[in-house]
Amino acid sequence: MNIKTSIIGVSGYTGLELVKLLLTHRHFTLSSLYASESHRDIASLHPSLKSVINLPIKEANKEKIAQECELAFLALPHQKAMEYAKTLLEKNIKVVDLSADYRLSLEKYEQYYCSHSDKENLKNAVYGLVEYNRAEIAKTNLVANPGCYPTATLLALLPFAEYLDNTQSVYIDAKSGVSGAGKKLVQTSHFATINENLFAYSPISHRHSPEINEQLKKISKIQLKTLFVPHLIPLTRGMLVSIYAHLKEKIDPLKILHERYKDEPFIRVRESCAQIKNVAGTHFCDIYAKADEKDLFITSSIDNLLRGASSQALANANLMFGLDESLGLPKIAYAP
Amino acid sequence: MNIKTSIIGVSGYTGLELVKLLLTHRHFTLSSLYASESHRDIASLHPSLKSVINLPIKEANKEKIAQECELAFLALPHQKAMEYAKTLLEKNIKVVDLSADYRLSLEKYEQYYCSHSDKENLKNAVYGLVEYNRAEIAKTNLVANPGCYPTATLLALLPFAEYLDNTQSVYIDAKSGVSGAGKKLVQTSHFATINENLFAYSPISHRHSPEINEQLKKISKIQLKTLFVPHLIPLTRGMLVSIYAHLKEKIDPLKILHERYKDEPFIRVRESCAQIKNVAGTHFCDIYAKADEKDLFITSSIDNLLRGASSQALANANLMFGLDESLGLPKIAYAP
Amino acid sequence: MNIKTSIIGVSGYTGLELVKLLLTHRHFTLSSLYASESHRDIASLHPSLKSVINLPIKEANKEKIAQECELAFLALPHQKAMEYAKTLLEKNIKVVDLSADYRLSLEKYEQYYCSHSDKENLKNAVYGLVEYNRAEIAKTNLVANPGCYPTATLLALLPFAEYLDNTQSVYIDAKSGVSGAGKKLVQTSHFATINENLFAYSPISHRHSPEINEQLKKISKIQLKTLFVPHLIPLTRGMLVSIYAHLKEKIDPLKILHERYKDEPFIRVRESCAQIKNVAGTHFCDIYAKADEKDLFITSSIDNLLRGASSQALANANLMFGLDESLGLPKIAYAP
Amino acid sequence: MNIKTSIIGVSGYTGLELVKLLLTHRHFTLSSLYASESHRDIASLHPSLKSVINLPIKEANKEKIAQECELAFLALPHQKAMEYAKTLLEKNIKVVDLSADYRLSLEKYEQYYCSHSDKENLKNAVYGLVEYNRAEIAKTNLVANPGCYPTATLLALLPFAEYLDNTQSVYIDAKSGVSGAGKKLVQTSHFATINENLFAYSPISHRHSPEINEQLKKISKIQLKTLFVPHLIPLTRGMLVSIYAHLKEKIDPLKILHERYKDEPFIRVRESCAQIKNVAGTHFCDIYAKADEKDLFITSSIDNLLRGASSQALANANLMFGLDESLGLPKIAYAP
Repeated sequence: MNIKTSIIGVSGYTGLELVKLLLTHRHFTLSSLYASESHRDIASLHPSLKSVINLPIKEANKEKIAQECELAFLALPHQKAMEYAKTLLEKNIKVVDLSADYRLSLEKYEQYYCSHSDKENLKNAVYGLVEYNRAEIAKTNLVANPGCYPTATLLALLPFAEYLDNTQSVYIDAKSGVSGAGKKLVQTSHFATINENLFAYSPISHRHSPEINEQLKKISKIQLKTLFVPHLIPLTRGMLVSIYAHLKEKIDPLKILHERYKDEPFIRVRESCAQIKNVAGTHFCDIYAKADEKDLFITSSIDNLLRGASSQALANANLMFGLDESLGLPKIAYAP
Repeated sequence: MNIKTSIIGVSGYTGLELVKLLLTHRHFTLSSLYASESHRDIASLHPSLKSVINLPIKEANKEKIAQECELAFLALPHQKAMEYAKTLLEKNIKVVDLSADYRLSLEKYEQYYCSHSDKENLKNAVYGLVEYNRAEIAKTNLVANPGCYPTATLLALLPFAEYLDNTQSVYIDAKSGVSGAGKKLVQTSHFATINENLFAYSPISHRHSPEINEQLKKISKIQLKTLFVPHLIPLTRGMLVSIYAHLKEKIDPLKILHERYKDEPFIRVRESCAQIKNVAGTHFCDIYAKADEKDLFITSSIDNLLRGASSQALANANLMFGLDESLGLPKIAYAP
Repeated sequence: MNIKTSIIGVSGYTGLELVKLLLTHRHFTLSSLYASESHRDIASLHPSLKSVINLPIKEANKEKIAQECELAFLALPHQKAMEYAKTLLEKNIKVVDLSADYRLSLEKYEQYYCSHSDKENLKNAVYGLVEYNRAEIAKTNLVANPGCYPTATLLALLPFAEYLDNTQSVYIDAKSGVSGAGKKLVQTSHFATINENLFAYSPISHRHSPEINEQLKKISKIQLKTLFVPHLIPLTRGMLVSIYAHLKEKIDPLKILHERYKDEPFIRVRESCAQIKNVAGTHFCDIYAKADEKDLFITSSIDNLLRGASSQALANANLMFGLDESLGLPKIAYAP
Repeated sequence: MNIKTSIIGVSGYTGLELVKLLLTHRHFTLSSLYASESHRDIASLHPSLKSVINLPIKEANKEKIAQECELAFLALPHQKAMEYAKTLLEKNIKVVDLSADYRLSLEKYEQYYCSHSDKENLKNAVYGLVEYNRAEIAKTNLVANPGCYPTATLLALLPFAEYLDNTQSVYIDAKSGVSGAGKKLVQTSHFATINENLFAYSPISHRHSPEINEQLKKISKIQLKTLFVPHLIPLTRGMLVSIYAHLKEKIDPLKILHERYKDEPFIRVRESCAQIKNVAGTHFCDIYAKADEKDLFITSSIDNLLRGASSQALANANLMFGLDESLGLPKIAYAP
């Protein structure tokens, strides 16, 4: 099978990761790359790709894109993404959207982002957390690719939802590398701000909070209150989430994790605390949990740009085309 | 006043910080430095001190030390510290012990560390959290200098103890730079282990947990259950603690902090999240808190080697000799 | 003595360092701080200064500044600095300029920067490399504070000038932490550009090259050709310079260094390679050299923001007012 | 083709990289892994390999290894490697040795390392710098895999050998990430030693110096004197080499590089300075050069563990078995 594939938005980090992932994919063939401005070629934008791939970058144009592909990855800012999705879906292109545009209910979306211009598709979009929504993903034309924080949080928390005392809050202390904030030049991406520093930001009120809450409810059918506090850590790539929750009764948390994930090739239940360097550069999510009487501690780690964005997008696309879900998902990284 | 002062254990990080702090102190005069082995001089051990101080390092010997000083800082491993403290106290030397040897109740000490050989002094030692124990510190000859994690945690949590629902656990997600683990060569201090990595360790069962619990109880008179999870972060110096707790009722957390600390020159209540780089190299503790209905989030930051060890030890010594508590405590650091 | 002092340009790194240095200076009293925009106070701009200093920041205005001080530090971009210097010198204010505006000959300045609007003062400005120009500095009203790269290079190279084969080039491989590039948000200060990366930039053609060449000639009276290649390194603060040169004859380089610098309290001749962490946070310059037959290797290290900018500016001001040159220059840093 | 392959010494960094490279190789099949002690399996030693590969680690034993493979990679310390090589070669196993044991002439080896116990094979070993020694590599049973510093240096310098004034020294200022020093716990691998620090070590007298000199002579037939100074940089992975040399006449260095390497798929001639982050995680060597009259500056970058060790070893093995040289060599890395 040879499926013509476009990436719209290749100038950012997740666009770059998608290009790299698709370079060696057996069925998805990169037919065209788009950015807000045209560039000589992809290597002029991302010098690490010199001698690796030689595709021009075209200025994005919805109509033309629709003629050139069967599958489109949208690595665009929110609001921009829905414009493209709408047009492409009309032309029967399958779309994986890496932005926030189709992840939330209309109500929460408009509360946390802006007014939504594609309400029809929003209703039908499938949330692409592969381990939980495989069947729906296989049948849809529009996947809302999960955010990085929600991915690491939901994979860690969902197996325990039924054991938690839902009269109490779940506390999510999340730590992300700087690449999670993207390539833009802001004070919080300046080297001197991040290096030898650590701090929480947007405590409680971060945009990923409603995504976690809605999906937790939707997938587990259990209403839990969560309190989400993200932190920026002085490293480029990777994410660690530490979760604290109250149990209804004593449990054996590793047993629960092993049972839930024993058939999942990309979830690794660990015997000790998850570490970023074991997952950076891969599609793996590592999880560890420990209980003390009725208190539960869970810690999970992912690569924010792969499992938290681009490789998860690829897993979704694999499912949408009836392919083996694990095709092209990286398992090893060249980092000691 | 010219008080002859010894530091026992100058080869580690906290010993080095003490040397630097005492170099410019108005009343404490460095009379002798000790380590387990003798060295040509302090600069041969710590090259940054070349041309700054020129004192030999002698091999530690309890009897001789007692003849040479009125004040001794013990920057020794636990178990070793109590041997020295006992002898020095007999000779009427005032002692600030930076180890864990006098921080815990006998019961907890022997459970988490080893058997205690100086039970008499253990009973009378004063816990040197200056903002809470000034009066006792001023009267004692033996201060147990608080651990770094307990310092950052207690300063953040104590003002809220009376507002918390003590039927629920308090969760402490602590993050420490690598210097907290000391100079020894272990796998977790290897550059390749820490760099571009992040992980929790000893979750729930860390030795600083009983210290936090006992002092919380002792100082606030309120019994709270805490769950403590430390993390190693890829930076050398600094500590950030994020605390999650349940409130009995709605409160204004910044108001509570401002009221409690308005007269404390080294506690800064922040209007946004505490950051390591604002406190590294200083004696300050920065604290911020935010509530959401009945959930409370508190975040505090200190320099683990100064406020979490050596400058706190100096503040204690100042009090023990009736001096201005703030003498020689660093307020500015040369780091952007 | 109580000398009213202004800093013009406190929003950048060198301005911040000057504020910190002057806080504890015995004779220079901070009377006013200026930036391009006014701010509530200095701590709102640099949060680490909260509870340390409480001065407002005023919008810079040449006429008003002249009424408020006897000494002005200019921590401004080049071109802007000369406008201020000119006005302030007319009013008999002593000026230390940290920009490049008075460091070069007119010819080189206009070749590498822009047209010069204060040619008269340019002629009379004294280059503030304290170890070499003390007498002139003491007599001038205008010091051109040396650049960071030239400081580290000249202090290392000047003692050897007479021993070098000047028919051959001297190669200067310089490495600077990111703070050297300032606070502005550019691609090369983004955390993901610098972290886990290393690269040379502007090889051979960097603006600091003519400054090195002109001063080398002026101070040593020997004409040498240098080739200067700066590199950006993944750390915030500090600079290391490695110099390679041809000798006319065999020499004992450490002996030469010791002789030249034996009376200099802030130059430390090392017995092994200089390290950034021994000088970061201080005014020290550490130097080591080794020869192999007729090849010479010299390596020196400084704190780019202190010895390479602000503390050197302070040393110059001390001299200009007839004070002890070493007043207020930091010798210890709180970093392990 | 299915070639049974052993790795002897899988506990270090280069052994781990070899395991990862061979996991997806089309013709080399990992039949057995060895270390000085046996371990449950490779993932217990390298947790990132959990769920990726499931091979036990056996205690190394020369006789047994020879029965289990046709190809052996030796990722052992020097001196240990030659013991294994000798035995394996007697049994007709093809050997790629990643240690220094077969890289130098006998004279230089015994001067810089220790006495050599396999002089016969030392004479016949081929130096595995693939771009220069392909024909000999294809015919040998023993490849001495080049060191990381010599690889980056020789690939950069060899194209210019004939243009250099060989009465003058060539200066090599090399910078390596910490992984180059291996996994062992020494003071220079402690996080606090490396982080926020930079320094040269073993200037002029480093062991890689004779390797560079001998191969430069052997390959180019030109005698050049080099002076080699390595530096440790605060990053885990990657190497940058800056070379300074005197030209006999003016040249166009980029033209020379393009001509020499136009058919080499893993050498990328750059239009601006080489950067570590463009090559880390790949087999690429990036090179840039610039001349100023008769001075030449060259800068090259490689991944020290891949092109400087394990992927170069794999390229050599590919050639020894008559396979496509580029089989399995990584071109993309998952790092922004």
